[in-house]
Amino acid sequence: MKVEEIVKEFLEYVSKMTAYNEALGLIFWDMRTGAPKKGIEQRSQVIGMLSSDVFEMSTSDKMAAYIRELSAHKQALSHQVVKILEECNKSYERNKKIPAEEYREYVVLQSQAETIWEEAKAESNFAKFSPYLEKLVDYNKRFIEYWGYEENKYDTLLDAYEPGVTVKVLDEVFGQLRKEIVPLVHQINNVNQPETDFLYKDFPKEQQKAFSLKVLEQMGYDFGAGRLDETVHPFAIGLNPGDVRVTTKYDEHDWRTAVFGTIHEGGHALYEQNISKDLIGTPLCTGTSMGIHESQSLFYENFVGRNFHFWKKNYDLLKQHSEGQFDHVSLEDFYRAINESKPSLIRIEADELTYPLHIIIRYEIEKGLFNDEIQVKDLPKIWNEKYEEYLGVSPANDGEGVLQDVHWAGGSFGYFPSYALGYMYAAQLKTSMLKDIPNFDELLEKGELSKVKEWLTSHVHQYGKMKKPLEILQDITGEGLNANYLASYLKEKYQKVYDL
Amino acid sequence: MKVEEIVKEFLEYVSKMTAYNEALGLIFWDMRTGAPKKGIEQRSQVIGMLSSDVFEMSTSDKMAAYIRELSAHKQALSHQVVKILEECNKSYERNKKIPAEEYREYVVLQSQAETIWEEAKAESNFAKFSPYLEKLVDYNKRFIEYWGYEENKYDTLLDAYEPGVTVKVLDEVFGQLRKEIVPLVHQINNVNQPETDFLYKDFPKEQQKAFSLKVLEQMGYDFGAGRLDETVHPFAIGLNPGDVRVTTKYDEHDWRTAVFGTIHEGGHALYEQNISKDLIGTPLCTGTSMGIHESQSLFYENFVGRNFHFWKKNYDLLKQHSEGQFDHVSLEDFYRAINESKPSLIRIEADELTYPLHIIIRYEIEKGLFNDEIQVKDLPKIWNEKYEEYLGVSPANDGEGVLQDVHWAGGSFGYFPSYALGYMYAAQLKTSMLKDIPNFDELLEKGELSKVKEWLTSHVHQYGKMKKPLEILQDITGEGLNANYLASYLKEKYQKVYDL
Repeated sequence: MKVEEIVKEFLEYVSKMTAYNEALGLIFWDMRTGAPKKGIEQRSQVIGMLSSDVFEMSTSDKMAAYIRELSAHKQALSHQVVKILEECNKSYERNKKIPAEEYREYVVLQSQAETIWEEAKAESNFAKFSPYLEKLVDYNKRFIEYWGYEENKYDTLLDAYEPGVTVKVLDEVFGQLRKEIVPLVHQINNVNQPETDFLYKDFPKEQQKAFSLKVLEQMGYDFGAGRLDETVHPFAIGLNPGDVRVTTKYDEHDWRTAVFGTIHEGGHALYEQNISKDLIGTPLCTGTSMGIHESQSLFYENFVGRNFHFWKKNYDLLKQHSEGQFDHVSLEDFYRAINESKPSLIRIEADELTYPLHIIIRYEIEKGLFNDEIQVKDLPKIWNEKYEEYLGVSPANDGEGVLQDVHWAGGSFGYFPSYALGYMYAAQLKTSMLKDIPNFDELLEKGELSKVKEWLTSHVHQYGKMKKPLEILQDITGEGLNANYLASYLKEKYQKVYDL
Repeated sequence: MKVEEIVKEFLEYVSKMTAYNEALGLIFWDMRTGAPKKGIEQRSQVIGMLSSDVFEMSTSDKMAAYIRELSAHKQALSHQVVKILEECNKSYERNKKIPAEEYREYVVLQSQAETIWEEAKAESNFAKFSPYLEKLVDYNKRFIEYWGYEENKYDTLLDAYEPGVTVKVLDEVFGQLRKEIVPLVHQINNVNQPETDFLYKDFPKEQQKAFSLKVLEQMGYDFGAGRLDETVHPFAIGLNPGDVRVTTKYDEHDWRTAVFGTIHEGGHALYEQNISKDLIGTPLCTGTSMGIHESQSLFYENFVGRNFHFWKKNYDLLKQHSEGQFDHVSLEDFYRAINESKPSLIRIEADELTYPLHIIIRYEIEKGLFNDEIQVKDLPKIWNEKYEEYLGVSPANDGEGVLQDVHWAGGSFGYFPSYALGYMYAAQLKTSMLKDIPNFDELLEKGELSKVKEWLTSHVHQYGKMKKPLEILQDITGEGLNANYLASYLKEKYQKVYDL
């Protein structure tokens, strides 16, 4: 068969996998935005079958043959087909190397562990969860052996979320970040905190929604290619670039949950909406990594949504939607309040400044676990010591300590660093963006965000998975990952907010 | 291989087809309740792939082997497996007998014809549509040859929608019905019509929705296994018995669209919600025919929703939800208004009494077409003559005449009779129900509809496709289809409404 014919067949084959994934995406969205409870059991069967189909297609003999035959003729393939082939090869290798029986056992363990974790967290009972966590870690250690590693075992886990970003890279940037942030956190801990009481008043859900919709519109989110729905754990999902949905939740006593949440998810959504149409129907038609995805959401949440100039434009609008809670609050006091920084125990409630420290703690622990320097049984002690050292706070129990996140119960080791990476990427991109858009703040004040979106689309969004994360960074900034940009931004911002 | 093993494999095979159909059902629902427009093109690809999968599985060599091997051991199979086998065999035969190339051409023709029909209808230009209609009829004539027929060619088309109901049956019941209804329609045409102006006032959408939800609840619709959404062409859809969704549309100047529409779709939904859980994952887990499905929706719409006793319970509730439009209208005047009967040109706007005549006209035409007694080119003339004869009205143009329905453009010949059959089934079931529930009207007055739902569940819903339509009828009523029940109901009702 001619190469072109194999390519044609191969593309049809992957487009079928993409189609199944799109159906699965819609089912996922539906289950989290109002699917009737009594139908879930049967719907899970549907998910199971479609997922198996995709898994089987990704590890089939047919896929192996495509990879083998096309890899032998790489010079005859378009750049895009090469990239698709690389993606398929990567998941083939990852999925095929684990013995099927072992993987099945692992899936069962994951599901048990999540249930136990939920109970253990509620009871603040680490001992209950630790046998499961030990097994999960052991499985992943074996997987690392199957998959292989070069410098550091943990690299292999990191690679699933952030290709190219290794322990060597992270040690350097996280070390740098920690060194810069920790003193600033301690310094802020000793000065007066802004007034924030006025934030926590009744703000009707419908009004929060109306305001959130206006902000999404300002960001350039395309409502012809999306919609906003309510859910418990907010997310954005790209089914295809023409259908990228945002979800949010409303707390009637804290409007920030919905507003900053929507801006955050809106950032993810802009990424997925603006991927090149040429990539539709291929595995390249999504964000290139967890970290780059998070860079887009955090860019909008923090550099836009928590920017003084954004509120110069939008504070009056927010006031109009509220029931008077900001009537006697100046823009400056409002800005300080939404940028309050206070060391806390819970990652998902942390502010911009302290957030990276929550991640660094988890990174250091995961790295230790997979290099046999930390034992699962010692986790609570190590966790609490690190919180005391970096943030100056100490959990009263493991429920608000080491048990707080679901990630480990789901076997997601190597995921946490993406959150902080996204933040660093965003700060680094912002610095480059300012060279092209020096009047960034002014545009925010005018509510003219289209240039910002266009810049991100042309430098990041359009490529989907055609470029690796560090390739995107290099092409834009001319350098690798550099923590200085985020460190400088945080120092400058918080010195101003706190008049240091 | 042992028979039990083949059965196990076969059931897994059909459960996969069912799962794909459930995914397709969700995609369909989503597209009609708010899927972003720009994603539709790619979503159509997903639909195409999943539909092809189901089609291929239904006509595969594997399916042929299951049918062959299991049919040879019918005595060793459970009743349920026999029924599943029959279903699979039926679609195998239907799908396999048409040459693949011819079917592909037909699908293209269907899609072209629908587009042209839409234009032709807007322009009232039958000549534009008629070449397409001729081709569609010709294709279906050839299909009938492939599929085979016994007494009447048209029977083969009817069988797709209403297994067991033939021209012989329909000629008798429709003839009977026409004979009884036509004089009544003419008689009513000559007496005073009730006052109806008060129906058409502003009734806010949210209030219509609130009232509709209360009625659905009264009917026993399970909101833990369903939800109500808005759409343009309302429908109900059963994804599985635990997830059966109702859709409706709101006309702020005519509350009846939403309220009677929701009751109608709610009737369909009760059917799908109450199919036996044992049938989940099989092709038997849906309504047994179009006609029986319609019997459930029409039962609720007409025998409950347009019943005087139902409004004795609910008129005050409706008033509370409205903006005062019924303030000076007595329950009796209200009841007469919502039961006004007036010969009209448009089927979907017809009242209970005249509706069957719209169907009979279409039935007679289809029967003529497929027995070569009517030519496509003569349709407008024949259509208009029949409307004049049966209903005493004459279309001013073909847009409000022969071009009004989409069915023929989609190649759905044999579908129309189901609407009237549903109506007759419902009347016949109601008569049997009254023997078990003699205080039917009293229960409606109390809003206690659970007994009615339970009766329908135990006699109709639970069986899904385990029983054929006429089997259900026979088991309940001890006789075949009989038009007298509907005729008597209509005569009695309209003599009262119009004081004849």
